[in-house]
Amino acid sequence: MDTTQVKLVTIIAESVLEHRLVNDIRRLGAKGFTRSEVSGEGSRGRRVGDVEGANIRLECLVSEATAERILEELAERYFENYAVVAFVENVAVVRGDKYI
Amino acid sequence: MDTTQVKLVTIIAESVLEHRLVNDIRRLGAKGFTRSEVSGEGSRGRRVGDVEGANIRLECLVSEATAERILEELAERYFENYAVVAFVENVAVVRGDKYI
Amino acid sequence: MDTTQVKLVTIIAESVLEHRLVNDIRRLGAKGFTRSEVSGEGSRGRRVGDVEGANIRLECLVSEATAERILEELAERYFENYAVVAFVENVAVVRGDKYI
Repeated sequence: MDTTQVKLVTIIAESVLEHRLVNDIRRLGAKGFTRSEVSGEGSRGRRVGDVEGANIRLECLVSEATAERILEELAERYFENYAVVAFVENVAVVRGDKYI
Repeated sequence: MDTTQVKLVTIIAESVLEHRLVNDIRRLGAKGFTRSEVSGEGSRGRRVGDVEGANIRLECLVSEATAERILEELAERYFENYAVVAFVENVAVVRGDKYI
Repeated sequence: MDTTQVKLVTIIAESVLEHRLVNDIRRLGAKGFTRSEVSGEGSRGRRVGDVEGANIRLECLVSEATAERILEELAERYFENYAVVAFVENVAVVRGDKYI
């Protein structure tokens, strides 16, 4: 099977940021994304309003350059004032040209 | 801790494919799987009927050979006509013999 | 973008274990975690009570040493008698000092 290495970017954030984050990752080059509802407790301890389903998880498959841009922009725009976690993994996909 | 490297295969697909995909991955060698409901927007843009919860995410821990077979079969059977994303990652597990 | 390699630990378990597992990973050094509801079928076949939403998935970003301790403790305490899957991946994060 002929696979391509791409980056899986996972973002976990307060639900209130969902539309802004989706716009950001689209603008920065993500061709698609997957969204799910999660809950959790961050390194600041339990936040007010941190109830079940109040966080979202966005995932997108992108090129290394796009992953880099997404991390940079999230760090600049949100990390100071919002509960946002973002991490990047290497994954192998079929038909990688769809994503990069 | 003695861990084994196995493959984590993640499949994100239209919910209508769930039972077929579960049968496929079982037949191809997955010993188990995890299922969750997700939503999203793919590289084709928003699809008719693409509403919250309408996509499923299946994950299974398998050997490299099984991961290869799953990717091949998904590519052959679904990629042309369905919204299906599949990717493979390296993960470390305890008691890896359960999965391979 | 300056990133740090950390470990993403994913635990999938029977819902009944949720509070014990959360206490375990906190005690062992996880600064936060993400929780979602999943369902699935394990290597023992479909279990009694294995209905939609009956399993939970916990994820945490931790140092390599903490990941090791979490796997060891889970293996000792739960693997014998409970349906628990745990795996570890390498991920890159921004501001990795938050997690380790």
